[in-house]
Amino acid sequence: MSDMHWFVLISTVAAAVAIAVGIIFPAIAMGRAITQALESLARQPEAEKSITRTLFIGLAMIESLAIYVLVIVLIILFRNPLLEYLLK
Amino acid sequence: MSDMHWFVLISTVAAAVAIAVGIIFPAIAMGRAITQALESLARQPEAEKSITRTLFIGLAMIESLAIYVLVIVLIILFRNPLLEYLLK
Amino acid sequence: MSDMHWFVLISTVAAAVAIAVGIIFPAIAMGRAITQALESLARQPEAEKSITRTLFIGLAMIESLAIYVLVIVLIILFRNPLLEYLLK
Amino acid sequence: MSDMHWFVLISTVAAAVAIAVGIIFPAIAMGRAITQALESLARQPEAEKSITRTLFIGLAMIESLAIYVLVIVLIILFRNPLLEYLLK
Amino acid sequence: MSDMHWFVLISTVAAAVAIAVGIIFPAIAMGRAITQALESLARQPEAEKSITRTLFIGLAMIESLAIYVLVIVLIILFRNPLLEYLLK
Amino acid sequence: MSDMHWFVLISTVAAAVAIAVGIIFPAIAMGRAITQALESLARQPEAEKSITRTLFIGLAMIESLAIYVLVIVLIILFRNPLLEYLLK
Amino acid sequence: MSDMHWFVLISTVAAAVAIAVGIIFPAIAMGRAITQALESLARQPEAEKSITRTLFIGLAMIESLAIYVLVIVLIILFRNPLLEYLLK
Amino acid sequence: MSDMHWFVLISTVAAAVAIAVGIIFPAIAMGRAITQALESLARQPEAEKSITRTLFIGLAMIESLAIYVLVIVLIILFRNPLLEYLLK
Amino acid sequence: MSDMHWFVLISTVAAAVAIAVGIIFPAIAMGRAITQALESLARQPEAEKSITRTLFIGLAMIESLAIYVLVIVLIILFRNPLLEYLLK
Amino acid sequence: MSDMHWFVLISTVAAAVAIAVGIIFPAIAMGRAITQALESLARQPEAEKSITRTLFIGLAMIESLAIYVLVIVLIILFRNPLLEYLLK
Amino acid sequence: MSDMHWFVLISTVAAAVAIAVGIIFPAIAMGRAITQALESLARQPEAEKSITRTLFIGLAMIESLAIYVLVIVLIILFRNPLLEYLLK
Amino acid sequence: MSDMHWFVLISTVAAAVAIAVGIIFPAIAMGRAITQALESLARQPEAEKSITRTLFIGLAMIESLAIYVLVIVLIILFRNPLLEYLLK
Amino acid sequence: MSDMHWFVLISTVAAAVAIAVGIIFPAIAMGRAITQALESLARQPEAEKSITRTLFIGLAMIESLAIYVLVIVLIILFRNPLLEYLLK
Amino acid sequence: MSDMHWFVLISTVAAAVAIAVGIIFPAIAMGRAITQALESLARQPEAEKSITRTLFIGLAMIESLAIYVLVIVLIILFRNPLLEYLLK
Repeated sequence: MSDMHWFVLISTVAAAVAIAVGIIFPAIAMGRAITQALESLARQPEAEKSITRTLFIGLAMIESLAIYVLVIVLIILFRNPLLEYLLK
Repeated sequence: MSDMHWFVLISTVAAAVAIAVGIIFPAIAMGRAITQALESLARQPEAEKSITRTLFIGLAMIESLAIYVLVIVLIILFRNPLLEYLLK
Repeated sequence: MSDMHWFVLISTVAAAVAIAVGIIFPAIAMGRAITQALESLARQPEAEKSITRTLFIGLAMIESLAIYVLVIVLIILFRNPLLEYLLK
Repeated sequence: MSDMHWFVLISTVAAAVAIAVGIIFPAIAMGRAITQALESLARQPEAEKSITRTLFIGLAMIESLAIYVLVIVLIILFRNPLLEYLLK
Repeated sequence: MSDMHWFVLISTVAAAVAIAVGIIFPAIAMGRAITQALESLARQPEAEKSITRTLFIGLAMIESLAIYVLVIVLIILFRNPLLEYLLK
Repeated sequence: MSDMHWFVLISTVAAAVAIAVGIIFPAIAMGRAITQALESLARQPEAEKSITRTLFIGLAMIESLAIYVLVIVLIILFRNPLLEYLLK
Repeated sequence: MSDMHWFVLISTVAAAVAIAVGIIFPAIAMGRAITQALESLARQPEAEKSITRTLFIGLAMIESLAIYVLVIVLIILFRNPLLEYLLK
Repeated sequence: MSDMHWFVLISTVAAAVAIAVGIIFPAIAMGRAITQALESLARQPEAEKSITRTLFIGLAMIESLAIYVLVIVLIILFRNPLLEYLLK
Repeated sequence: MSDMHWFVLISTVAAAVAIAVGIIFPAIAMGRAITQALESLARQPEAEKSITRTLFIGLAMIESLAIYVLVIVLIILFRNPLLEYLLK
Repeated sequence: MSDMHWFVLISTVAAAVAIAVGIIFPAIAMGRAITQALESLARQPEAEKSITRTLFIGLAMIESLAIYVLVIVLIILFRNPLLEYLLK
Repeated sequence: MSDMHWFVLISTVAAAVAIAVGIIFPAIAMGRAITQALESLARQPEAEKSITRTLFIGLAMIESLAIYVLVIVLIILFRNPLLEYLLK
Repeated sequence: MSDMHWFVLISTVAAAVAIAVGIIFPAIAMGRAITQALESLARQPEAEKSITRTLFIGLAMIESLAIYVLVIVLIILFRNPLLEYLLK
Repeated sequence: MSDMHWFVLISTVAAAVAIAVGIIFPAIAMGRAITQALESLARQPEAEKSITRTLFIGLAMIESLAIYVLVIVLIILFRNPLLEYLLK
Repeated sequence: MSDMHWFVLISTVAAAVAIAVGIIFPAIAMGRAITQALESLARQPEAEKSITRTLFIGLAMIESLAIYVLVIVLIILFRNPLLEYLLK
């Protein structure tokens, strides 16, 4: 198999694996935060405003972690800076 | 086996694995959130509106993580940008 | 063994594995949600309507995750878009 | 060993493994749901009707997951669509 | 070793493994259900009838999962449909 | 080593492994059921009759799972139906 | 190494492993049952008779599982029915 | 495959893996902190100011850990100091 | 290395491993039983006689499991019935 | 591949792995400490000063552990003392 | 390497491993028993005599398990009965 | 690759791994101690002096463990006593 | 590499591994015992004498397990009885 | 690579691994003991003297375990008694 084939093949696999693994724990963390928000709502309905605001800021920060992974994966799939060493 | 065969074969396997793994933790996180929502409903029936609204926003954000994986898998199966290096 | 043999063989195995793994966590998540619904019913029988409605929406969203996997598996078994590169 | 031998052998093994693995978590989920139903019955005997109805709908949805696996296994054992590429 | 030898040998091993693994989680699930039934009996002796009825329906549904595995194992040991491709 | 040697050797090992693994979880499940029965007896001594009856039915159903394994192991050790393909 | 050597060697190892693994979970299960019996005795000293009777029946049933393993191990060490295919 | 190919390939894979692994535990830690903040808000609504201030300082320190990883990954992808030994 | 060397070497290793593994869970089970006995003594000092009697019977039954392993190990080290096939 | 290539390649991988692994547990530990601080604030708002002071000293000491790893990684990437044995 | 070298080498390693593994769980079990004894002493100081007597009998029985391992290890290091087959 | 290359390469990797692994558990232990200190402060604000003194002595002793690892790593990187056998 | 080199090398590694592994669980067990002793002291300060006496006897017995390992390690490093078979 | 190189290389790696692993559990055990001491101080401030005395004796005994490992590691790095067999 040519070198380019190997590169394309393994990049594809790495991208698939990284995105699948990379969302695992953001998903878990989100699940927990939402779970707790629901519980807090049930316990203190009148604090709804501050609870949902804190929840959405938290979800945004966790989502940012998942997006780091997505960005790296898309860089690898569409525009890999290391390729210039090969195509030179 | 020709290079193209290897590529097709491993892409198929990677797609199958990635989708199977990638829904694991969104499923768990959803399960937890729904579980807690049900518990909160039982404890505070009159807060039903804010509970279900928070639940559905949360489920949507978790679902978005699973859809990142699905998108990457479909890109790999139907339209892989790295293939142009091979078909050139 | 010919290339096609390998492809058929491994696709079959991957399909079997992916479906077996892919239902694991939806099953767990469903189990938890149902469990909690039963507990909530026992604690607050008069909230039965909102509990079962939330439960069924949640089960539907979890089931959708399992169906993503089933769809990918059936695409691999019956109609794999990557095959056109091989049969060309 | 001929190609067909390999195919038959590995399909058999994959079928055995997939069914053995595929029932694991439905079994666990069922166990939990039944466990909770029994506990709820003990705590709220008068809600027996809604409890058992929710339980049986839940068991049916979990059973459906196990049947997805059984269907894929039987397709592999008795009628594999990918075989036509080999017998052609 | 002839092809047939390999086939017989590995089928035997796969059957042994599948049955040993396949009963694991039904056993656990049964254990939990029975455990809970015993606890419920101790807490609410007068609900004995509905408890034992729910318990036995649940045990039957879990047992059905174990029997799926047993059926696949016996099909593999005594009558494997894929063998006709080899004996043809 | 002749083919028959391999077959005998691996069958022996598989039998030993299968029985050792196959009793693991029935043992655990039994342990839990008995444990709970003892606790229930301490909490509700006057329900002794229904507790021990439920316990023994449960133990019998769990024992049946262990016996499935024992039967498959003895079939493999003393009378393996797949052997006729080899001795023919 | 001759075939017989391999057979004797691996049988010995398999016997040692099987017995070491096979007693693991009966030991755990027994430990739990005894533990609970001791706790029940402390909580309800006057139910001593029914507690110890249930305990000893339970221990006997768990011991039976360990003895299944011991029997298979002794069959393998002293009298293996599959040996007749080799000595013929 | 040329040396440069290997280097590019493995650097790409390492980058994908490192970012996917590196956000795991910051995600978990954030999830926990947010979870607890939500719970504290529900328990002590009037301490909202000090709670959210402590929360955001904590999230910033955890985010810094994830950024260490991102920095190392970007150094590897875009500007690797060890490359000068190779290009010399 | 001669056949006999292999046999002696691996038997020795298997014996060491089996005894080291075989006492693990009896040790744990004993630890638990003794732990519980101590707790029960602290809670119900006047039931000391029935507690210690049950404890010592339980310890004896667990010890019997460890002795099964010791017996198999000593048989392997000092008098292995399968050796007669080799020395014949 | 030349020796230098190997060295550069593996150093790069080791650096990526070490930083990804090295922040795991500091992240967890920080998460726990912050979590507890939030809980303590909710329970004892008037002790805010001593709580946040202890928290920040603790975070600094945990951060120092992560920085040990970062220092070793940067030494490896930018200035490795062992390289003088190679360039001599 | 001569046969004897292998034998000595692997025996040494096996001895080191067996003793290191073999004390693991006795240590844990002892730790638990002592822990509980300390707790019982704090709860029921006047039962000190029966607690410490039960504790020391229990520690002796657990110690006996560790000594089984030590004995097998010393037999392997100083006087291995299987060596006579080699030196003959 | 020359011997020296191997030595340098593997020493570098070992140093990176050792420091990354070596801070894991000190980090966890510190996290726990700080966590508990924060909880104790919330529960008993007036014992602040003895709590923080005990905390800092404890953190120092745990830090000493991490420093043992750092010392060994720096010895390996900068001044390895075993090198004199090679350079002789 | 000569035989003696192998022997020395692997003995050294085995010694390092054995001591590192062998203190793991004594450390854990000690930690637990001390933890409990501290808790008991806080709950029942007037039982300090019997608590510390039981604690120190227990620590001595656990220490003895760690010393078994140290003794075997030192025997292997300084005076290995199996070496006489090699030096003869 | 010469024999001496191997020896030096692997000794170095073993030393790094052993120290990194060997402090794991002392660190955990210390963390627990300190944690408990802090909790006890919060619960029973007036028993501070006996608590801190017991704590420091316990920390010393755990530290002794970590020092066993450090001693073996330093013996291996600086003065290995088995080297005399090689240098002879």
